[in-house]
Amino acid sequence: MIIDSKETKIQILGEPRIPSPLSGKIKGGYTNRFVSEDERIICAVEKKDIQHYLDNNLEIPSFEKAGPREKIYFDPSKLKCAIVTCGGLCPGLNDIIRSVVLELHHCYGVRNIYGIKYGLQGFMPEYGHDVVDLTPGTVSNILDMGGTILGSSRGTQDIGGVVDCLERMNTGILFMVGGDGTLMAANKIADEINSRNLKISVIVIPKTIDNDIYLVSKTFGFDTAVDIATNAIKGAHNEAAGYPYGIGLIKLMGRHAGFLAATAALAQQDANFVLIPEIEMDLHGESGFLCSLEKRLIERKHAVIVVAEGAGQKFFSDQKTEYDPSGNIKLKDIGVFLKNEIIAWFKEKNIPVSLKYIDPSYMIRSLPANANDSVFCGFLGRDAVHAGMAGKTKLLVSHWNNNYVHIPMEASAGKRKNVDPQGKLWQSVLEATGQGCLVNDCNTN
Amino acid sequence: MIIDSKETKIQILGEPRIPSPLSGKIKGGYTNRFVSEDERIICAVEKKDIQHYLDNNLEIPSFEKAGPREKIYFDPSKLKCAIVTCGGLCPGLNDIIRSVVLELHHCYGVRNIYGIKYGLQGFMPEYGHDVVDLTPGTVSNILDMGGTILGSSRGTQDIGGVVDCLERMNTGILFMVGGDGTLMAANKIADEINSRNLKISVIVIPKTIDNDIYLVSKTFGFDTAVDIATNAIKGAHNEAAGYPYGIGLIKLMGRHAGFLAATAALAQQDANFVLIPEIEMDLHGESGFLCSLEKRLIERKHAVIVVAEGAGQKFFSDQKTEYDPSGNIKLKDIGVFLKNEIIAWFKEKNIPVSLKYIDPSYMIRSLPANANDSVFCGFLGRDAVHAGMAGKTKLLVSHWNNNYVHIPMEASAGKRKNVDPQGKLWQSVLEATGQGCLVNDCNTN
Amino acid sequence: MIIDSKETKIQILGEPRIPSPLSGKIKGGYTNRFVSEDERIICAVEKKDIQHYLDNNLEIPSFEKAGPREKIYFDPSKLKCAIVTCGGLCPGLNDIIRSVVLELHHCYGVRNIYGIKYGLQGFMPEYGHDVVDLTPGTVSNILDMGGTILGSSRGTQDIGGVVDCLERMNTGILFMVGGDGTLMAANKIADEINSRNLKISVIVIPKTIDNDIYLVSKTFGFDTAVDIATNAIKGAHNEAAGYPYGIGLIKLMGRHAGFLAATAALAQQDANFVLIPEIEMDLHGESGFLCSLEKRLIERKHAVIVVAEGAGQKFFSDQKTEYDPSGNIKLKDIGVFLKNEIIAWFKEKNIPVSLKYIDPSYMIRSLPANANDSVFCGFLGRDAVHAGMAGKTKLLVSHWNNNYVHIPMEASAGKRKNVDPQGKLWQSVLEATGQGCLVNDCNTN
Amino acid sequence: MIIDSKETKIQILGEPRIPSPLSGKIKGGYTNRFVSEDERIICAVEKKDIQHYLDNNLEIPSFEKAGPREKIYFDPSKLKCAIVTCGGLCPGLNDIIRSVVLELHHCYGVRNIYGIKYGLQGFMPEYGHDVVDLTPGTVSNILDMGGTILGSSRGTQDIGGVVDCLERMNTGILFMVGGDGTLMAANKIADEINSRNLKISVIVIPKTIDNDIYLVSKTFGFDTAVDIATNAIKGAHNEAAGYPYGIGLIKLMGRHAGFLAATAALAQQDANFVLIPEIEMDLHGESGFLCSLEKRLIERKHAVIVVAEGAGQKFFSDQKTEYDPSGNIKLKDIGVFLKNEIIAWFKEKNIPVSLKYIDPSYMIRSLPANANDSVFCGFLGRDAVHAGMAGKTKLLVSHWNNNYVHIPMEASAGKRKNVDPQGKLWQSVLEATGQGCLVNDCNTN
Repeated sequence: MIIDSKETKIQILGEPRIPSPLSGKIKGGYTNRFVSEDERIICAVEKKDIQHYLDNNLEIPSFEKAGPREKIYFDPSKLKCAIVTCGGLCPGLNDIIRSVVLELHHCYGVRNIYGIKYGLQGFMPEYGHDVVDLTPGTVSNILDMGGTILGSSRGTQDIGGVVDCLERMNTGILFMVGGDGTLMAANKIADEINSRNLKISVIVIPKTIDNDIYLVSKTFGFDTAVDIATNAIKGAHNEAAGYPYGIGLIKLMGRHAGFLAATAALAQQDANFVLIPEIEMDLHGESGFLCSLEKRLIERKHAVIVVAEGAGQKFFSDQKTEYDPSGNIKLKDIGVFLKNEIIAWFKEKNIPVSLKYIDPSYMIRSLPANANDSVFCGFLGRDAVHAGMAGKTKLLVSHWNNNYVHIPMEASAGKRKNVDPQGKLWQSVLEATGQGCLVNDCNTN
Repeated sequence: MIIDSKETKIQILGEPRIPSPLSGKIKGGYTNRFVSEDERIICAVEKKDIQHYLDNNLEIPSFEKAGPREKIYFDPSKLKCAIVTCGGLCPGLNDIIRSVVLELHHCYGVRNIYGIKYGLQGFMPEYGHDVVDLTPGTVSNILDMGGTILGSSRGTQDIGGVVDCLERMNTGILFMVGGDGTLMAANKIADEINSRNLKISVIVIPKTIDNDIYLVSKTFGFDTAVDIATNAIKGAHNEAAGYPYGIGLIKLMGRHAGFLAATAALAQQDANFVLIPEIEMDLHGESGFLCSLEKRLIERKHAVIVVAEGAGQKFFSDQKTEYDPSGNIKLKDIGVFLKNEIIAWFKEKNIPVSLKYIDPSYMIRSLPANANDSVFCGFLGRDAVHAGMAGKTKLLVSHWNNNYVHIPMEASAGKRKNVDPQGKLWQSVLEATGQGCLVNDCNTN
Repeated sequence: MIIDSKETKIQILGEPRIPSPLSGKIKGGYTNRFVSEDERIICAVEKKDIQHYLDNNLEIPSFEKAGPREKIYFDPSKLKCAIVTCGGLCPGLNDIIRSVVLELHHCYGVRNIYGIKYGLQGFMPEYGHDVVDLTPGTVSNILDMGGTILGSSRGTQDIGGVVDCLERMNTGILFMVGGDGTLMAANKIADEINSRNLKISVIVIPKTIDNDIYLVSKTFGFDTAVDIATNAIKGAHNEAAGYPYGIGLIKLMGRHAGFLAATAALAQQDANFVLIPEIEMDLHGESGFLCSLEKRLIERKHAVIVVAEGAGQKFFSDQKTEYDPSGNIKLKDIGVFLKNEIIAWFKEKNIPVSLKYIDPSYMIRSLPANANDSVFCGFLGRDAVHAGMAGKTKLLVSHWNNNYVHIPMEASAGKRKNVDPQGKLWQSVLEATGQGCLVNDCNTN
Repeated sequence: MIIDSKETKIQILGEPRIPSPLSGKIKGGYTNRFVSEDERIICAVEKKDIQHYLDNNLEIPSFEKAGPREKIYFDPSKLKCAIVTCGGLCPGLNDIIRSVVLELHHCYGVRNIYGIKYGLQGFMPEYGHDVVDLTPGTVSNILDMGGTILGSSRGTQDIGGVVDCLERMNTGILFMVGGDGTLMAANKIADEINSRNLKISVIVIPKTIDNDIYLVSKTFGFDTAVDIATNAIKGAHNEAAGYPYGIGLIKLMGRHAGFLAATAALAQQDANFVLIPEIEMDLHGESGFLCSLEKRLIERKHAVIVVAEGAGQKFFSDQKTEYDPSGNIKLKDIGVFLKNEIIAWFKEKNIPVSLKYIDPSYMIRSLPANANDSVFCGFLGRDAVHAGMAGKTKLLVSHWNNNYVHIPMEASAGKRKNVDPQGKLWQSVLEATGQGCLVNDCNTN
């Protein structure tokens, strides 16, 4: 079961009573179609899942559909909004910022929109970061720039301090763009707001280039990342094929999930090995990675390896665990590790390999969004605004079963989507690479 | 109701009894997960649609899931397959061809794969087009080329002649890549095959850059097209903004559906008017397009107009209807028409406009697929092969509710997907452009 | 002889006496190397040209080298500068604007820099266009935008009126970015300034995507244009090869010179016919274009034609000459003309051609500059500033023999560079296309 | 003085007596303009350099112009040619191969063209690499692929062995595409050929993405490399600006010359420090790099550093010198070194920097050429063929003073072009970055 019906309920700050300024906004025959509260999207599409609910007399779980509501909670003329971008860069951050600002300004008439600088740091007086006034003018030309005009930072901050700042600034809606850690911080911020009895809506627009947020089918920036990662793999292939015993080794993002590595590997099918966190592998031994690589090299004279950054972390088990400022476990660098292991292996075998190691991560995440991600970010930003204006809170705006929906933070925070080893994506990678099982005792399974 | 349960049933040529060569193909622990016949994807995701079925004691309609089957119908060692690409170019045609060939060759061991040249013409002896032998070698480097290595043509051919050719060539599976017209021809070919009691599977991979095929959520090439169309709109914006009373007029594909125009217009939100076939408009009169354009030009000094090729066909109602070789109505050129009307209008008003007309259609459809479309095409091609090998026929491979499924040809042929004037896409376009209603009496609705 | 020695002399407003603020600007060991007045670049590099000068006891003509001078004429603290962009869009306009503004501001300390809107219109009070204050802030993020942030317009304006405006604004240096027409207007403006005894420097940065300005080896934007035009030709090739008797017809910029068409045709060598203004052709007759095209189509089943917009104007000789606002002869549309002639020809011959006509002009010229053009524009802009600050006037900044030099306006205005029919570029096109001579009686020459 | 007149003389294998098949090749009025032996391009364009020659009664040195000759040395019907690509990948290798093959085949009628696999290794029997038959068919679709279809390798091989192989294969012309090391090997091969009294022409097409070959104004691939490097710098800028105390550190190619780093840094002017081999710098001390970086970070909160791979090698002076297979000194990794030094420095200062290190080298050099490089490669390849067919040998095809010329190998081998610290390129970088002198005692110079 994907989710329980009870977990899909969205909190509200209070009854929305103000008629939305969107009504009648569109001159003429086409009126803005408001979404009513009983419009919902069911969570599952597999017939057997639906049957399971029916057979057990369970309600089929469904998510609230996102979109403009007929009645809103906040008075736009008095509302102050804040927006903050957290964690690593991702294509589309500026698109989200622009979309939120334009929707608040043009459609709801909100005139006080503040950009918080450098992630959660921006809330803390001790850092002294300025707050930025956001208007249509400040966001009009930011789509072709990568990064985020607000800056970002890693790491959490004192939750009380954040809420103090929101109170001081008299904020009505806080838009947070960020990943896993941000989602957990947002959850606590919403709880603290609640315990102080404040009326502040907290809306998360989920961001991760790894595409691994639970109950979110695709995160923005992923489409762009696949495009660029594919180019990097082509480059690795050209380097590998360009030399006798040429090896192209390319490390891609993917701390816990190999979606990017697996998807990009399918685009041109140049990769011969795809290593992702979800799939076990051995380094040594007859079926291990190094032997398999050697076999391929002997047969075909070149090989291309795509490794997700979170793969093979077990090889570092004897090393001390370290944490980054966001509290994430600092991953050991599997790319550099593999590079060294491969070189050592073939040196011993006296095979003169020519290995080229490519790590395009920062070149991918710092890019502007492509057109499809821009369109996607536009919808996410607008629906985040609609949700906030309606007084909803503690939710994230998700795309699920081709619809934009509201997901309660608690339903998603702390969980994760993964590449299914039995699923279509990974099976296709296995077919395309022919890499087989890289674990020594897999035949006995 | 989207579809009736009875309409989702897929025909088969006979009972598949041969164990799939895919079993055990993947060395080691990860076995290829075969799809069983009872795995199905429900058609609708709106809760109220599901409720409707339940309330009326109807079966919830669902589509057969695509993917490899445990038993197949054809003996790979004796099987001959043919593939043909029909109609207009579209990014991804070569990806489809490559994917079908690689899957047939490497995974099923099929050794006789023939490419039919220049669409349905290739079946007809009178054209004298050669048949192309397709092997992994011939398709290995075709992904970076646009167009189709097989060539294409418009127009249907004598159905009996096509089936004669299939018989002569001893074809087991025919893969057809094409749009609306191709789907209808495929349907007839399958019927003729049936009436001759032949065992030939006909599988369609739906192709249209307009993205308007019924029961297919997205067609390949659309993602690429949005990317490029967005660039064209940026160019039009630069031209418009670069001159006093500058007008950028850009015509995009979209014979009956404005998906491309509407989606591309949302990417950068530079467009001020989006005109699509689904939405009425008047040219003259107070609320008409020309008056609205004039108002915009006076206020803002420049304007960008995106028009889908199928928009405003009513303006040609007094002209003779003509047909192209595919039997499609030859659309009158709305782009050139609008250009002339606009110039005439402002000449009379003595406003010295600078109009730049851009028609990027052939530059869009002739491009190679971007990475995401390549991945998508890979799945479509492989699933087409799985369907054919299993002896299924008269179906199209569709992507629906995030799953690859089989749709009976009859359920889709002759129908069409359209931009919903009340839906999220069009409402967002209205918001982004502020164009309002361009019909004179729309206030009274 | 390329040029006479007397024609290379640059006018000055007066003796530069103020020490340049650039001295000592670069902290430390690397001092800014000022260019002295006797540093000159010779005009010709062919040995036989040099020998001609020596044999006839003539001075070898040479151009003044561009770059910073040790003494400048204007006092930066009191100087007002104006910049204007004229004529058609071209990749790199914003790069030029940015480079001029940054150099004036950061290196010379000039604080009053004005952008004139919409070309020469911006000087005329009757149009009411505002003047734009240009600072580092306003130009920092304009490189990724195509077009020109100042706008442009075609056509000349009353020269006296322009100089009146310059006087009113107390302008010291006027930077004009434009082509042929702009160069002639600039020449007259400089003369009028002189006759009024004003001290205003007029500096032209030559712009034309046709790359046909006399004594300027390459104009900015051309490199970018070749990139994009090449893509368009690839598209045309895919369309042509995609259909039986497929024809791709692509029109490129080039009013009087075929540099863009010829160069782009060489990049991928997909073109079978390149038609440019410099080369005669007949339409009909045995060696004419249509017969040659037919021969190619019969032999190879497809053909790609690249035509420069200025080619074949003789076919319109019976039509009335019209002029655009810039006073340029309005070219008849050779692209549409050829399209119709080709279709008519093959209709009569009963050959069912599939012709795709592509006109990418506005999509090319409205793009941002690529990196190489950006670098080039940076040098042009900075050298324009150095020239103006030194009190030089009536010149254009040119790139000649790999050096940036000053060319007197009079030496270049009204003349034009052309593709040499006997030169390497055109001979290579003939080789690549195999098109031969398209004139009926060329065998007798 | 750039070069002595005597050094510009090109060796020939013997008197060319065979009429070129190119005469009359171009049907009709435009005949192929043959280049005569007295057409030469003078080496220098600075007036003072010319004056120096004249004042001292010296002949002005000049280079032989490249291009087709009226008489050729080899009989095409009996000629065998070989082509080999050596050293690191570079955009345009496949363009060169294609151009050489098409010119030999179509224009001279040569039917035996062999591709040597994997650089000089391909000549040595012990490696067992096959020789590849090159025809128009094998090279028709290779332009969109990066890398080299022939493969490459580093390192020299026994010169006698190479010439043995050439003899065995009965080679008439050997085309070598490679850099510095290849040039030196080619020189020795030509000497060995001479001492054996063989009639084999050796023609080098110079390749280096560093653009540092002596007497070659620009090498192919550089234009493409600047494009991509600029994108990488944009990414580094976005990463740097995206975090408090953000640092983007990007390493680019440039073993001995900083052309790529300096040029790319000028395109968008995002870089704050550009470190190249030609310019001294200190790490520590008041004017040293680290102090300067700290100052910048404190003032502006972020910094972008571009470092050429050959910069700062003095910091490794205490380490053992190592050599790669080509005999090049193995450079120590200045990028990783700087990264560690910077992190250590700010850790000690307790400034929480966020450093992102980007090394795009392999992603740049493995790309296909852009359109301008394709055109350039076409000319180089064709002129290499013309030179070889005319019986010229021991030369490299260079682009100098905007003309394609022949340079004797000895004049260029072992020397190098460098960024001139007093020249326009570097002075512009100093202006754009404001980095000043990074040496502690530079004030005293």
